[in-house]
Amino acid sequence: MIVAMQEKATEEQIDAVIAALVESGVEVHRTTGEMQTILAAVGRTSSLELAKFEIMPGVSHVHRISSPYKLAGRSFRPEGTVIEFRNGVKVGNRRVVAMAGPCSIENRDQIFETARRVKGAGGTFLRGGAFKPRSSPYAFQGMGIPGLELMREAAEAHGLLVVSEVMEIAQIEPMLPYVDLFQVGARNMQNFNLLRDLGQIRKPILLKRGIAATIEELLLSSEYILSGGNYEVILCERGIRTYETATRNTMDISAIPIVKKLSHLPIIGDPSHGTGRRDLVAPLARAAVAAGADGIIVEVHPNADKAASDAAQTLYCDQFDTLMGELRLIATAVGRSF
Amino acid sequence: MIVAMQEKATEEQIDAVIAALVESGVEVHRTTGEMQTILAAVGRTSSLELAKFEIMPGVSHVHRISSPYKLAGRSFRPEGTVIEFRNGVKVGNRRVVAMAGPCSIENRDQIFETARRVKGAGGTFLRGGAFKPRSSPYAFQGMGIPGLELMREAAEAHGLLVVSEVMEIAQIEPMLPYVDLFQVGARNMQNFNLLRDLGQIRKPILLKRGIAATIEELLLSSEYILSGGNYEVILCERGIRTYETATRNTMDISAIPIVKKLSHLPIIGDPSHGTGRRDLVAPLARAAVAAGADGIIVEVHPNADKAASDAAQTLYCDQFDTLMGELRLIATAVGRSF
Amino acid sequence: MIVAMQEKATEEQIDAVIAALVESGVEVHRTTGEMQTILAAVGRTSSLELAKFEIMPGVSHVHRISSPYKLAGRSFRPEGTVIEFRNGVKVGNRRVVAMAGPCSIENRDQIFETARRVKGAGGTFLRGGAFKPRSSPYAFQGMGIPGLELMREAAEAHGLLVVSEVMEIAQIEPMLPYVDLFQVGARNMQNFNLLRDLGQIRKPILLKRGIAATIEELLLSSEYILSGGNYEVILCERGIRTYETATRNTMDISAIPIVKKLSHLPIIGDPSHGTGRRDLVAPLARAAVAAGADGIIVEVHPNADKAASDAAQTLYCDQFDTLMGELRLIATAVGRSF
Amino acid sequence: MIVAMQEKATEEQIDAVIAALVESGVEVHRTTGEMQTILAAVGRTSSLELAKFEIMPGVSHVHRISSPYKLAGRSFRPEGTVIEFRNGVKVGNRRVVAMAGPCSIENRDQIFETARRVKGAGGTFLRGGAFKPRSSPYAFQGMGIPGLELMREAAEAHGLLVVSEVMEIAQIEPMLPYVDLFQVGARNMQNFNLLRDLGQIRKPILLKRGIAATIEELLLSSEYILSGGNYEVILCERGIRTYETATRNTMDISAIPIVKKLSHLPIIGDPSHGTGRRDLVAPLARAAVAAGADGIIVEVHPNADKAASDAAQTLYCDQFDTLMGELRLIATAVGRSF
Repeated sequence: MIVAMQEKATEEQIDAVIAALVESGVEVHRTTGEMQTILAAVGRTSSLELAKFEIMPGVSHVHRISSPYKLAGRSFRPEGTVIEFRNGVKVGNRRVVAMAGPCSIENRDQIFETARRVKGAGGTFLRGGAFKPRSSPYAFQGMGIPGLELMREAAEAHGLLVVSEVMEIAQIEPMLPYVDLFQVGARNMQNFNLLRDLGQIRKPILLKRGIAATIEELLLSSEYILSGGNYEVILCERGIRTYETATRNTMDISAIPIVKKLSHLPIIGDPSHGTGRRDLVAPLARAAVAAGADGIIVEVHPNADKAASDAAQTLYCDQFDTLMGELRLIATAVGRSF
Repeated sequence: MIVAMQEKATEEQIDAVIAALVESGVEVHRTTGEMQTILAAVGRTSSLELAKFEIMPGVSHVHRISSPYKLAGRSFRPEGTVIEFRNGVKVGNRRVVAMAGPCSIENRDQIFETARRVKGAGGTFLRGGAFKPRSSPYAFQGMGIPGLELMREAAEAHGLLVVSEVMEIAQIEPMLPYVDLFQVGARNMQNFNLLRDLGQIRKPILLKRGIAATIEELLLSSEYILSGGNYEVILCERGIRTYETATRNTMDISAIPIVKKLSHLPIIGDPSHGTGRRDLVAPLARAAVAAGADGIIVEVHPNADKAASDAAQTLYCDQFDTLMGELRLIATAVGRSF
Repeated sequence: MIVAMQEKATEEQIDAVIAALVESGVEVHRTTGEMQTILAAVGRTSSLELAKFEIMPGVSHVHRISSPYKLAGRSFRPEGTVIEFRNGVKVGNRRVVAMAGPCSIENRDQIFETARRVKGAGGTFLRGGAFKPRSSPYAFQGMGIPGLELMREAAEAHGLLVVSEVMEIAQIEPMLPYVDLFQVGARNMQNFNLLRDLGQIRKPILLKRGIAATIEELLLSSEYILSGGNYEVILCERGIRTYETATRNTMDISAIPIVKKLSHLPIIGDPSHGTGRRDLVAPLARAAVAAGADGIIVEVHPNADKAASDAAQTLYCDQFDTLMGELRLIATAVGRSF
Repeated sequence: MIVAMQEKATEEQIDAVIAALVESGVEVHRTTGEMQTILAAVGRTSSLELAKFEIMPGVSHVHRISSPYKLAGRSFRPEGTVIEFRNGVKVGNRRVVAMAGPCSIENRDQIFETARRVKGAGGTFLRGGAFKPRSSPYAFQGMGIPGLELMREAAEAHGLLVVSEVMEIAQIEPMLPYVDLFQVGARNMQNFNLLRDLGQIRKPILLKRGIAATIEELLLSSEYILSGGNYEVILCERGIRTYETATRNTMDISAIPIVKKLSHLPIIGDPSHGTGRRDLVAPLARAAVAAGADGIIVEVHPNADKAASDAAQTLYCDQFDTLMGELRLIATAVGRSF
């Protein structure tokens, strides 16, 4: 950590900052320049609260020099993380994967028909929500565990893997037999209690970026899972909130190559939530793969207009077929397979 | 709801939209203009998903005409809501209130000394966190219920009320005997399960705005509590995320007069979280009261530099004394008391 | 325009709004519903100031129903605009184009060598700035018209077209003999005097989106040029300002398919300014084409590290060669050529 | 400037960075830590482009240590700048000032009547625009210099000073005889040519923050004027663009105390443009003064509903009277006069 003192900082102020740093358990190197004094703190600086030093009298700026995440950083595993699933499926290697399915599991027919179409188009994971806390208490709240049972059955019938969202700690245990990949939604990206418990299990986690989260905060949240001993985390870009109102969120495609540079973890794109509009899902899915994503996750429904939730952003199955064909060509264009 | 068709929309497209609206259970009035056709949907439109119609062929824009919240709207209670607490304290009337205390309850001495100073300066509520899920698993996680017991004791010894944050449903019941006002933090503003359960209790709720939430979304979240039968909700502006990096968040002072216009619920300002910097707390607290806030909530600690959490934004007790004096004058300037 | 009155609006308030609308020269249709009254204004509503009615007593919301732009709207030319240049080059048809060159024209060798490499890699336009007002008065301010002469010569020697930025009205006339495409930079997107004068010339305009401009505002600015009689406008997405600090701007890839839907004008992507980092230029250029862009504009320099400006975001020529190969494959994947 | 190398940076990479720094004309101090190497660049670092080093292989982060502005920094004039005008008026000292008037000068009666009311309420400056480039080519474009003549006459008749916006370099000279304070609007905050020329004159400048500008960028723009030799700059907070749509902009009240800390320049608040809504002008004007602003600038019009521009955000004269009374009390509450 670097503390840059103001040009007119007094010796007394400098000494106070040094004392505060030393008391925090770090070693301090002082450089007295012609214009200003710079203090370099060395040691266990990652737990130091920057703001605490920033407001001390005579301080100009405080900068963190070492990355605040360690296990999630690229240098921890320079070759990149590849996560292995049943059926020999891998995420994070040369092959780009597609996860698809309805927003909510609604009934047996719906999920089986979706599974058939997802598999037919070349998908690898079946997605579907079982728990749907809605803004209206009268709206459909999801099928719960019985829905997951159906989804698991449908997935196995068609050789697919299962990904579904876990919303609270109490759901982890009952979901374990049914899912291959636990999804943490954008609103829970900083639910540290949930992340801590997911760090204790031995199933991969799909961690979605919050709509107001920076890329650094996304990596810090993944660190929370990794530090529990669960190294199998896939990140997901799904749009951030900006001033633009033409889309529900602005999908930050640049997050994909940036995460690839900063971290060894795989990252996929979610153009359904990233845009909120069916007509933008395909263009943004293509953009995500073109930018280097390890996969995409999209909402698709055999009767998209009647979907119990998120109808407006759900693809028709035929649209999904077309998209998968385009993604196959784009994956090749960027040196990958699909 | 108004559906404006594109200028070149076909009769077939218009009919399809009308059919979809009717099927959703609303009545449709059609106005065929020289340039474009407009469809006005009348009836139970608040549960309609706008986006579903927005993406239909031939549609230009869809606008919600009726406010999406009813119980939280100003017209529901034009005279404004005043919430009564023990000791005759009221929030939402002419008197501006101050809630103050440490980020975390740390020990008996700390919370008693804080209570003494808060009361001495003219505060009404003692604030303090008992549950502190932190980004580092090694950091202080809060004292839990024993901390609330201490805070309650300290508050009663000094004639103060208690406000503390509830982070999950399981904490509601055990917290009930200790708090006068349940705080819902910014990260839980859209935790609908928690809001639903808080709608079932009969204690007031302090609902903080999420860092990426619009004012309308804040009011929708309050609606969730109100619709459960708990009409005692106080809103809180505590900063939103913007591109500006000089402050942790940008405190949206204009949200205060806007909420006053749109809703009958009281609103207070939290300049500690709104700025993240001790030196900005007083100016923004003054701004909040000048703009019409019903109160403020700030972090104060008898030994602010050593606070277990949020040290950088915590006021020294002497600063709090000075601030309270200034707020008294400003409250008078805007026709209120303090 | 639709004016939705509040549920408790009085007849007096409704009459006042009707009177104000009529006085503004529009016709008003009133619908009195069970809950609220809705006023539909018909006629020349595009010049009405929404906010003026929004603040009238008793008004709930005001919505613009007709699109605020006419000439730029898709319905004005549903088949899309194709702009023709010298040499048979077209922008907006099936073929995706590449515009490339240095941030600043520096000298003869630099611009000729760049032209050779751009042409060799398959580029169509040579870009380069002649006027460079810099934040430091001591920094390089650009070569001016002599630079444009050099660029024109280099472009013609290699069969390229010339695109360069015009910064003020006084530069239009002297630039005319040298450029094929006038670029309006992000900071000038709402310089209405400049736009008005560019609407009077008969050369195509490349209009860049401002860093705080919505897509609607970008289209409104293009309308300004179109309404002057110059129908040859190409739009450009080059990043917007968000809270994310990992990139200088957040490139809004979704703007590309949205503009394609809302407008008939071609749109290209600028990943150099959109990201500010050389290592992100190629991924975002690929994403732009994958999302449907009609072209890209990138900074490339034969000696990128020594570029007089924007060095950090300027591609090496070899990187540009590789990128062009990738774009060729992606263009094919989305049914276009390159 | 501090360059923090990655933990696994090679000696070769470190040497390359050192060489690049030295070539840029600065001196380099190297600290080789257990985990990572840190390079401190000393000397003329303010002209270095950070991004250029940030993308070099092996580099983790680059931080500017010294403030990028010198003349605008607090340490340049710790006691603060006080700007003197005719009539003994000062801005930046204990007394808070009010600038008020119509968006556009429309005619003799309007500007004289406004001047009378502004003076009567205790205002110091008469504001009014003479040049109004509008988004519609058919809208009122302003009265030009004849309007300024009228405003000057009205101001002198009532003992007021004149502030008006300059939009391009060519207007400086003709405006000189009429204005006491040149306003630079938000869209021109980074029009460096205009700023450079305003640095050459000897009249004070009112520099408004751009809607997407950081506080640091605002100070850098002021530096541009100061470095030309014109030290009389007043800054103005007038709202930034955020995701919130309830207001046209979000007025960043915290910018006021931050500027007070970072710079010696006076700062005022513009709640008219900061909110875009008449009903929010008074609350935000009060907030600005409560937060420490040296003044406010608001739009007021004797016939606000009929104002030729910005009607929705223009105060009625009676509202202005009331506001001035409130501001007088708030100024006193924060230890100032009005």
